[in-house]
Amino acid sequence: MEKYFYTYDAFLKDIHQLVEKIDFQFDAIIGIARGGLTLAHFLGEYYNIRKVYALNTIGYNDIQKLPSVEVLSLPEITNAKDVLIVEDIVDSGDTLAEVLKILKEKYPETNFKTASLFYKKSARIVPDWAVQEADKWIEFFWTFDMKRDT
Amino acid sequence: MEKYFYTYDAFLKDIHQLVEKIDFQFDAIIGIARGGLTLAHFLGEYYNIRKVYALNTIGYNDIQKLPSVEVLSLPEITNAKDVLIVEDIVDSGDTLAEVLKILKEKYPETNFKTASLFYKKSARIVPDWAVQEADKWIEFFWTFDMKRDT
Repeated sequence: MEKYFYTYDAFLKDIHQLVEKIDFQFDAIIGIARGGLTLAHFLGEYYNIRKVYALNTIGYNDIQKLPSVEVLSLPEITNAKDVLIVEDIVDSGDTLAEVLKILKEKYPETNFKTASLFYKKSARIVPDWAVQEADKWIEFFWTFDMKRDT
Repeated sequence: MEKYFYTYDAFLKDIHQLVEKIDFQFDAIIGIARGGLTLAHFLGEYYNIRKVYALNTIGYNDIQKLPSVEVLSLPEITNAKDVLIVEDIVDSGDTLAEVLKILKEKYPETNFKTASLFYKKSARIVPDWAVQEADKWIEFFWTFDMKRDT
């Protein structure tokens, strides 16, 4: 599959586009680890939100995908009313759908919205806001800039 | 105070130096939010560790520092034996000291080590591994690249 090397500069351009789209006031951000962590951090800086949490799932096994997604670690977001959940890419949508289901069960009073850099049209759930459709395999800068042989 | 604009390229150079120093096998990473999140993400990529968690504290009020540090959200790390805690900068050391105290109380069987990009000699606790001594005010790329007016 053709690879798209997604650089830090491309990320910066996209994240500025993403914040133009997000018409939602929120008081906490949850980044789905690992891919959503840098995005969550940068959005926290932009919105000056200190409640930037991580949520850990298992389900991907590198390129091969397992049929199910399990949420391993949920953040405590008891005092948050409106929460933005972020991911680098919404691929099948399995992860995001499971994360939303579990968060809504645990925090029925909280309003959750979702954002990602990339999405696939074929995903079973599309994020509320996204920047680019993914029609290639996305190689992110946090992966290729950290290769051991560089 | 003089500012050091710490770019993404400088970060990449430093993180590759940091991993050269870290002589510790670990199975989970905790990034202290917000500043440690991007570092935690990149280290997770490098070591291919999926258990990348966030830990949230309060204590800094922008440049002014409050006298105490409170840990707001602790990750569940029940199955981790060896954990690397990361921060962007160890300044007074108050945050890192409090985080270590609380984690060791909750997980007495777990081995914790600490790493940061920057440290201050005057900190009450120095990380096990760090790259640069901070003798200026560090302005990180995740802050200045996300300024609303850029």
